[in-house]
Amino acid sequence: MKNRRVVIVGGGFAGINCARELGNVSGVEVTLIDRRNHHLFQPLLYQVAMAGLSPADIAVPIRALLADFRNVFVVQGDVEAITLPEANQPGSVHAARHDYPFDYLVLAAGAQHAYFGHEEWEENAPGLKSLEQATEIRRRVLSAFERAETTEMPDERRAQLTFVVVGGGPTGVELAGAIGEMSRFTLSRNFRSIDPKLTRIMLVEAGPRILPSFSEESAARATRDLEKLGVQVWTSSRVTGISEDGVQVSGETLRAKTVLWAAGVQASPTGGWLPVPRDQAGRVIVEPDLSIPGFPCIFVAGDQASLRTEHMPQGLPGVATVALQQGRFLGQLMKRDAQGKARTPFVYWDKGQMATIGRRRAVLESGGLRLSGLLAWWAWLLVHIYYLSGFRNRIFVLLSWAWSYLTFARGARLIVSKDWRSYPSATKLSAQ
Amino acid sequence: MKNRRVVIVGGGFAGINCARELGNVSGVEVTLIDRRNHHLFQPLLYQVAMAGLSPADIAVPIRALLADFRNVFVVQGDVEAITLPEANQPGSVHAARHDYPFDYLVLAAGAQHAYFGHEEWEENAPGLKSLEQATEIRRRVLSAFERAETTEMPDERRAQLTFVVVGGGPTGVELAGAIGEMSRFTLSRNFRSIDPKLTRIMLVEAGPRILPSFSEESAARATRDLEKLGVQVWTSSRVTGISEDGVQVSGETLRAKTVLWAAGVQASPTGGWLPVPRDQAGRVIVEPDLSIPGFPCIFVAGDQASLRTEHMPQGLPGVATVALQQGRFLGQLMKRDAQGKARTPFVYWDKGQMATIGRRRAVLESGGLRLSGLLAWWAWLLVHIYYLSGFRNRIFVLLSWAWSYLTFARGARLIVSKDWRSYPSATKLSAQ
Repeated sequence: MKNRRVVIVGGGFAGINCARELGNVSGVEVTLIDRRNHHLFQPLLYQVAMAGLSPADIAVPIRALLADFRNVFVVQGDVEAITLPEANQPGSVHAARHDYPFDYLVLAAGAQHAYFGHEEWEENAPGLKSLEQATEIRRRVLSAFERAETTEMPDERRAQLTFVVVGGGPTGVELAGAIGEMSRFTLSRNFRSIDPKLTRIMLVEAGPRILPSFSEESAARATRDLEKLGVQVWTSSRVTGISEDGVQVSGETLRAKTVLWAAGVQASPTGGWLPVPRDQAGRVIVEPDLSIPGFPCIFVAGDQASLRTEHMPQGLPGVATVALQQGRFLGQLMKRDAQGKARTPFVYWDKGQMATIGRRRAVLESGGLRLSGLLAWWAWLLVHIYYLSGFRNRIFVLLSWAWSYLTFARGARLIVSKDWRSYPSATKLSAQ
Repeated sequence: MKNRRVVIVGGGFAGINCARELGNVSGVEVTLIDRRNHHLFQPLLYQVAMAGLSPADIAVPIRALLADFRNVFVVQGDVEAITLPEANQPGSVHAARHDYPFDYLVLAAGAQHAYFGHEEWEENAPGLKSLEQATEIRRRVLSAFERAETTEMPDERRAQLTFVVVGGGPTGVELAGAIGEMSRFTLSRNFRSIDPKLTRIMLVEAGPRILPSFSEESAARATRDLEKLGVQVWTSSRVTGISEDGVQVSGETLRAKTVLWAAGVQASPTGGWLPVPRDQAGRVIVEPDLSIPGFPCIFVAGDQASLRTEHMPQGLPGVATVALQQGRFLGQLMKRDAQGKARTPFVYWDKGQMATIGRRRAVLESGGLRLSGLLAWWAWLLVHIYYLSGFRNRIFVLLSWAWSYLTFARGARLIVSKDWRSYPSATKLSAQ
């Protein structure tokens, strides 16, 4: 019998876990395509942006993760087209100047942040979805303190020491809390002209409260914890404009040199290449087994999929655990297909949700359980270390946290610029 | 009595050690200016380029290093001009939109790589002086293996798997050895279409042998060790051209997609602002006490200075230990000046030199002592850990090395791209 060819697009939680499930299974050939060479542990990305961890602490080469599986072929490259299967002809994915034919396709290319039609805001309000963006945010936040130290104009200083985080979901809450903690503890003794404790941090949320997916009680607790770190929480406040000088919030102008965007997501545009409906955020609306209507061998998973269930009529949330479980589910489904067994629907085992605030507070909800404060923070820490891929990363992240916890310092306070050239003008001349 | 104002330009080994020597000394006010926010442990920079260490492992915020000294003010910014002192008027340094007047000036702005009049080569042959360049080299080296894996054209594959390192000094030797080790061990099981062991690595040196500052014997040993890692050592070979497709070596064209430059240095151009002679590499020729002729309170130190002594008529080498000792010497000199004591000349305590080759070989020379092989490698390791600044960095680098040593893996195998934007076209539109 011919090997079944599985092509997976995306090396995130869904893609990696699907490939692992199929690793070294006989009769299966897997090709995993990603535009980057690394799998990223996104739940800790905000800690890279906030100088607590290094990029390499939360990213592992996809090749290294899958090296033991001789039937898995890894390709680094952009996916340029998807050809749908037709009668007696398999579909294929075009990437890195090649066609990769498939018997099964798993599309799990994730999501990026969305500006609701104002993509021009990105320049002055970066989002947080990649290591590059995390490094850029780190550069901006640390540079603002440097510029505040050397200016003598009070207006300019105030604008440099004002940080606005747009979006009150878990990412926004974690970013705002981390800036609060950094300014109050880490940087407090490092400057002479400014007092980093005077830093203003605004968390702006369009809805009536932060953490809308949590209970009212947890959201209120998180708000109090944020306020203790100097974060002002502005709810029911809509951002109407963003420029180099600041943010327009509900008509009012707020002078701020650093604006971070954590307000919305948009699924990968690759989903638009499939002839099926998508929701407002560009997610492909999938069948209960994650396949798409009319194509039982094409699946969409993770942040790129919208699966509406009886319990969650708005669709499953775009979190790592959903993607991870869907990846595993699809690997198992393909093995059952080969055995001629009937397909079953995907069932999400909801383990709950959590968000940290600063260095020892968190909120956690799981089933009927609600925790907050130090105990929730310990639970948060254990869960994240448990899921972090790769033995080395676990050890290094734990040590970084232990060191930061004891010293209040941050291990990766680097401002790295975007250009590496020493002779940019000569180089440019030769390129012309 | 008025405080004496010391302005230090550059937060490298010379600048940091001068500032530390003057830290919390009464009657002294220190301003340290650097364009970057971090002090860089340059001797380990090649390990960042070769994915063994993370940038944060070898870089520490200058503010954090000097936080305990209440009389030290740190400025992040470019130095734009130096005004020399005149009768009854102090000199000053202009940086970050400010004038910083000084009674003492220490210019220690370091050096960058030099292309001997061919700066246009930089685009295709980056040098290794900053974290940005190290990350760029890492990106190029790792990407070459990725492209070799997905191409089907044998010529293209060969060019992607050919690496040329120009310059046979310690940096060139360390880079070439590390590529050899990475291709033979770290990556060996990670690819399916290519065999990374077939990687060609050329170390090209214009002089008659590599490691010209070492003995013939050590150089011969290093050559043999490099060859065991698959590095071909080409001596008496002059590079006459570099393009996107490869290198011209002594008239012959060598197809290679990755070329690294470790062939020459050029001192910071800030030295040209002083009215004194400089040598061919742009280094300021200093008096025995590191001051410049005619200005007893202006000093130049580290890679930017050329100090010719009886024992070293060509000048002291551009290494970390010289800079470190000169920084300390200048701090002590200023304290002695204040006590009215006579100045003494700077005396370099030469502790020797070393270079590593791959994962457990090195050459070391100190006084009459010559070591090579595993013993020299252990000595290299201990010395570098000892000098690495900051308790945290020492622990993390040691652990990274231990982990790499045991597993043959590399902890920072990340390809990070240069642009962070998700919506570059929209952003560009708004900037117009």
